[in-house]
Amino acid sequence: MNNLGKNKKLLLAKYPNGLAELDDFITEEVEVPNIVDNELLIQSHYVGVDAALRLIVRDSDEFLFRVQPGDIIHANIAGEVIASNNKDFEVGDFVTGALGVQSLSISNGEGLEKCDPNLSPLGSWLGGFGVSGLTAYFALFDECKPQPGETILVTGAAGAVGSMAGQFAKLAGAKVIGTTSSKEKCDWLVNELGYDVAINYNDENWYEQLEAAAPDRLNIIFDNTGGSVMNEALKLIAMHGVVLLCGSTSQYYQDEMSGPSNYIWLGSMRARLQGFVIFDYAERYTDARKKISQWIDNGSLKLPEFVCDGDIEDFPSAFKKLFEGKNFGKMLLKLPAAK
Amino acid sequence: MNNLGKNKKLLLAKYPNGLAELDDFITEEVEVPNIVDNELLIQSHYVGVDAALRLIVRDSDEFLFRVQPGDIIHANIAGEVIASNNKDFEVGDFVTGALGVQSLSISNGEGLEKCDPNLSPLGSWLGGFGVSGLTAYFALFDECKPQPGETILVTGAAGAVGSMAGQFAKLAGAKVIGTTSSKEKCDWLVNELGYDVAINYNDENWYEQLEAAAPDRLNIIFDNTGGSVMNEALKLIAMHGVVLLCGSTSQYYQDEMSGPSNYIWLGSMRARLQGFVIFDYAERYTDARKKISQWIDNGSLKLPEFVCDGDIEDFPSAFKKLFEGKNFGKMLLKLPAAK
Repeated sequence: MNNLGKNKKLLLAKYPNGLAELDDFITEEVEVPNIVDNELLIQSHYVGVDAALRLIVRDSDEFLFRVQPGDIIHANIAGEVIASNNKDFEVGDFVTGALGVQSLSISNGEGLEKCDPNLSPLGSWLGGFGVSGLTAYFALFDECKPQPGETILVTGAAGAVGSMAGQFAKLAGAKVIGTTSSKEKCDWLVNELGYDVAINYNDENWYEQLEAAAPDRLNIIFDNTGGSVMNEALKLIAMHGVVLLCGSTSQYYQDEMSGPSNYIWLGSMRARLQGFVIFDYAERYTDARKKISQWIDNGSLKLPEFVCDGDIEDFPSAFKKLFEGKNFGKMLLKLPAAK
Repeated sequence: MNNLGKNKKLLLAKYPNGLAELDDFITEEVEVPNIVDNELLIQSHYVGVDAALRLIVRDSDEFLFRVQPGDIIHANIAGEVIASNNKDFEVGDFVTGALGVQSLSISNGEGLEKCDPNLSPLGSWLGGFGVSGLTAYFALFDECKPQPGETILVTGAAGAVGSMAGQFAKLAGAKVIGTTSSKEKCDWLVNELGYDVAINYNDENWYEQLEAAAPDRLNIIFDNTGGSVMNEALKLIAMHGVVLLCGSTSQYYQDEMSGPSNYIWLGSMRARLQGFVIFDYAERYTDARKKISQWIDNGSLKLPEFVCDGDIEDFPSAFKKLFEGKNFGKMLLKLPAAK
């Protein structure tokens, strides 16, 4: 036994029904074994609260990754190496990795990424400087290729990826429209992130607002939500447009997912619905981060974060808030170990 | 007045409800006016019976082309010039064009294409040698780019486009699987058109048959039908696969169309759903027809046609048969004027 105290872990208690409730999760405390050769021990500082988790806590064997009752809740964390028998990592190194919702993790180093908090604050390595920002960066610049004067719609515009994608599209010279769930978030998108137009999809006339904002139709739909907003927007796709399939947050918690019935508009408009997974771009993360750093330094880019202070047992309520649309940008659970 | 007799036209009587019924159409006979300067008169020999018609006889203003009650039924025809005041066309020329379901058409020549019946029989200029075959050709070779050893699924495999697409995919060296609606058509696909595997989607275990036939997943889904077959097949799309959106015949007659709920598989598989419209390729039709002619000449390609003999008033029953899946290949209505 070591003298590190216990590891607090969050497990799935039962499959959620609809939006995940607090009692779908359960906390467990376990002794931390000594690390053996090649292993390292990581203390979690931040846990990324990601909507995609809801997709893998489904009672379905259809998806490749899956969290079953009794399994640790999947999440990316950013933390500090506090013990190491691995030559590639030293005590004091900061890392991110898919280590799950727990305070202490043992790893053999595989899949971990070192982060330099001097380059960007540790939490941001899970958000705008991490997977969320890189997803927005490569999905937008490599797959959507926005041109000056084009019009782009970002759904879930105030979310972790959307809040970055819209800013990148502005930097590319596009007209940027975002949809989100409240007036407050609309104001934030326009005033803080520079969106040209932000639309509250809870407004009865949201589609008319979208039509009015996109007289030349939508060259790009950067879709984070799926559902009726994406489906209706398909009727406005421009000739040879791109619908980037980044996420489907409105569908993750549905018993029966629904597909976009207006997909046939892609046919007549010679448009494409494009799937995307960030991991394909791993070799170019460093280049992207250089560019992102430049934009941050010259004041043309923000890394929006919505930080919830708490401990492991507070993850379920943060996760619930995420699906209630409370977050402005990337939601992070900041653990006691974080400075 | 000229001495050509009357023109028999087919009009929409009322919007169909579900599958179009015979009494949704009405025949009208009208005098044919004399042609004026620059006009020509065409006698229809063949009428193409195309599923896409059902999409434009909907009571909806959502689609760009629309046939309303009282309008002539939209169709491509192949026929002969029988009078001409247009310097580009001579009596005896054969042409195709979107002239509608009628026995005689007056045109100013715009949008007409001359056909050489010595190159390929007149009816085939509406089918495998015409828009259907060209659609299959460019959608497959330009958008899907099948590689030797890849696996392709063609839905609606026995239809006008599907019956050509499957043959082209075989010529490209792919493994070709087709779905269709009867055992008889399955046999035809394999024995006549060289499909590797044909699956009757009315079989209870059709999906298991598909899984078994595609152990390396589906690099290409060439989709003519949409609906549940396409939706289920999405679960088998291969990494970086292409779903070519060619048609959605299962949806055209639905009050409420349904979208593919499994579209999120495109995300994890980095696949794309690609829209396509043949008219973008008009400048390359001649090149494609050269290639098609070579394959016909060396016996490696067939132009499957399902000819219904009849007159203008027989179009509705042919159209109904099309949606009942009676056709093997392109359905043509052969009019009395055809030799």
